[in-house]
Amino acid sequence: MDREKLFKKLSIESDAKMVLVVLDGLGGLPVKGRTELETAVTPHLDWLAAESELGQTLSIGYGITPGSGPAHLALFGYDPLRYDIGRGILEALGVGVQVGPHDLAVRGNFASLKEGLVVDRRAGRISSEQNRKIIEYLTPRIRSIEDVAVSLYAGEEHRFVLVLTGAGLSADLSDADPEAVPQPIRYAEAKNDGATKTARVVNAFIDRLNAELKDFFPANTCLLRGYATLPVIPSLSEMFGLRSAAIAVYPMYRGLAQLVGMEVLPCGRTIEEQVAALKENFSRFDFFFMHVKKTDSYGEDGLFEKKVAVVEEFDTWLPAILELTPAVLAITGDHSTPTRMKAHSWHPNPFLLKAQFQRIAAPPLAASAVPKFGESSCVRGVWGTFPAMEILPLMMANAGRFKKYGA
Amino acid sequence: MDREKLFKKLSIESDAKMVLVVLDGLGGLPVKGRTELETAVTPHLDWLAAESELGQTLSIGYGITPGSGPAHLALFGYDPLRYDIGRGILEALGVGVQVGPHDLAVRGNFASLKEGLVVDRRAGRISSEQNRKIIEYLTPRIRSIEDVAVSLYAGEEHRFVLVLTGAGLSADLSDADPEAVPQPIRYAEAKNDGATKTARVVNAFIDRLNAELKDFFPANTCLLRGYATLPVIPSLSEMFGLRSAAIAVYPMYRGLAQLVGMEVLPCGRTIEEQVAALKENFSRFDFFFMHVKKTDSYGEDGLFEKKVAVVEEFDTWLPAILELTPAVLAITGDHSTPTRMKAHSWHPNPFLLKAQFQRIAAPPLAASAVPKFGESSCVRGVWGTFPAMEILPLMMANAGRFKKYGA
Repeated sequence: MDREKLFKKLSIESDAKMVLVVLDGLGGLPVKGRTELETAVTPHLDWLAAESELGQTLSIGYGITPGSGPAHLALFGYDPLRYDIGRGILEALGVGVQVGPHDLAVRGNFASLKEGLVVDRRAGRISSEQNRKIIEYLTPRIRSIEDVAVSLYAGEEHRFVLVLTGAGLSADLSDADPEAVPQPIRYAEAKNDGATKTARVVNAFIDRLNAELKDFFPANTCLLRGYATLPVIPSLSEMFGLRSAAIAVYPMYRGLAQLVGMEVLPCGRTIEEQVAALKENFSRFDFFFMHVKKTDSYGEDGLFEKKVAVVEEFDTWLPAILELTPAVLAITGDHSTPTRMKAHSWHPNPFLLKAQFQRIAAPPLAASAVPKFGESSCVRGVWGTFPAMEILPLMMANAGRFKKYGA
Repeated sequence: MDREKLFKKLSIESDAKMVLVVLDGLGGLPVKGRTELETAVTPHLDWLAAESELGQTLSIGYGITPGSGPAHLALFGYDPLRYDIGRGILEALGVGVQVGPHDLAVRGNFASLKEGLVVDRRAGRISSEQNRKIIEYLTPRIRSIEDVAVSLYAGEEHRFVLVLTGAGLSADLSDADPEAVPQPIRYAEAKNDGATKTARVVNAFIDRLNAELKDFFPANTCLLRGYATLPVIPSLSEMFGLRSAAIAVYPMYRGLAQLVGMEVLPCGRTIEEQVAALKENFSRFDFFFMHVKKTDSYGEDGLFEKKVAVVEEFDTWLPAILELTPAVLAITGDHSTPTRMKAHSWHPNPFLLKAQFQRIAAPPLAASAVPKFGESSCVRGVWGTFPAMEILPLMMANAGRFKKYGA
């Protein structure tokens, strides 16, 4: 029996509330002997750690640095190597587009065409403001091609997202991107018969855009790649019988939550506002995913003290979450983003699980070890090192939502 | 996506050098409270351990005692349960034969035939010297059978290796071995139609050998078993994009390295000479596998102090390896060979990883724990217990040779 079938078979109803807090990119590397998390002054997390089961999780596998998509799939209980969320879909989610089953999402670059050759693949990195104006200009002018609807969304600088909506669209196309300059325009090619129509539509889109933008140099053509349709993923409701909600500020995470059937709750931009949204909706759902982004952002920027400060800010709101007395509370990261690396990394994520039926560190260890929530204490936690996709099953068990397997 | 596809997809180029040192059979069991490794006086390893990520690896699985073949496949990043290196191939590698895609390697015993019955399956354990003389006698006399070339290689005592080379050879044969005495000669039988020709050739070989050796009692017949063709294994270059080299003294390990596409470097017989070979070739490869055999040999012989001495000898050469400043250095065993057991065992291998982006045990633990490289410290290392086949992915990550998975 595969794990998804197992979960479906075992899941039962319960009134127990489950809260999963994801501090994005939480894990770090030591600077002067302590990581960001270990440096942060976190009296509430430290108290909770001493009362909780600790461990460290691997998002994808040993040595594998995860992107946000697969890292969150793992946190939602899915095998991240089983489901592929295409780049186009993630880009679409990132600009706040709700992607549906008849959509093909595509990453676009504005680019520069001169005397028939692509001479700059990023259109001189035009400003995001110029980008928005071009998209506004194009939107009413290219509304459909054949029976396929065309939607365009501005991204940052030269980037945009193209969403084609219609029957029988396929992602099996070659990139419409010469990949080097100066080179002639490269059109998309179907990789199989099922993609012939899509290739024709994509290439017609390129010609239409080139005609509309002929006086818009340096943004007078486009490159298209990362074609992706919506992955077919069983919802959290199907797999675990959960009514689930997301409290996330950034579009990509709201989109990822929607992909697995979560209701995305309105919330402000601060942790305080997110906790308020949790409180307000606490009775309506079984499972809450609360996503704090800035730990990752400051990790990517290499700002150690700022990352520390986000953890400390979260710590001040932890009592407000505990006041709701969730039956199960898990706090972890989706991947590590050490400020020393200014990037996602493969290092395991600190993990904390607070619930009614738990083992905590036995007295001999607890007495000698610092009961702090950090990478070092989590290494020695009762769960050791384990796959992130097993967090949700652990939460389900602690919520009394899994029945016994076998007699 | 399976792990090999994942690695292929993620691997990128880098200038970072990776060194994997395998102290064969390193792990042990305590005698007077300390294992061989813990007894050894190893100031350099101890210093390095305090600066490194530690853990313990399982070569194959919990409770599984590995042979050298699968144990090394795991260290080279392969799932050791996916690829089967047949016994005949290992025997051939062990006597220094380079095995090719048209070869069938077979384990042979010289045996004793009397009045039509096999009466001794080991020919009275003739000396290795006698063995070599018989092989020299046979070699010019049995050069081919049908269109199949015959090669013979002497092993220790009564053992030899037969390599058949030709098109369409199959390993799907029953053993040509009566397994008990006294019994008539047992010929090989094809297990399917594809093996008919091979069975005919093998049995013709037995008849030819019996005819040639009729006056050589007690070595006047042979038993054949362990038929094996070369397993099809993707190379380290295909799987990880690595230019890799082996610095190993013993033929079997040199052969195993060749099976996965390593260049086998000339080196002497001592650790000093191996380190010199590493230094001399350091610029030419991305990944080095350095194999120290004697830890295992003395483990098998039950010689505790001698095994300790080999570890201490390696320790004196560790600074010379560190002087090369490899980006990533891993030190581990392929399996445990406790002198108390005089055999390979299932116990995990101590593992040490020194790299740029590492988590080490935080000061509170390090202060209370002995910062020694040993089984007990590795149990409490940041990586806990993990599969040996994940070592190479971890090294790849630390070398900056894996890109992010997903966006």
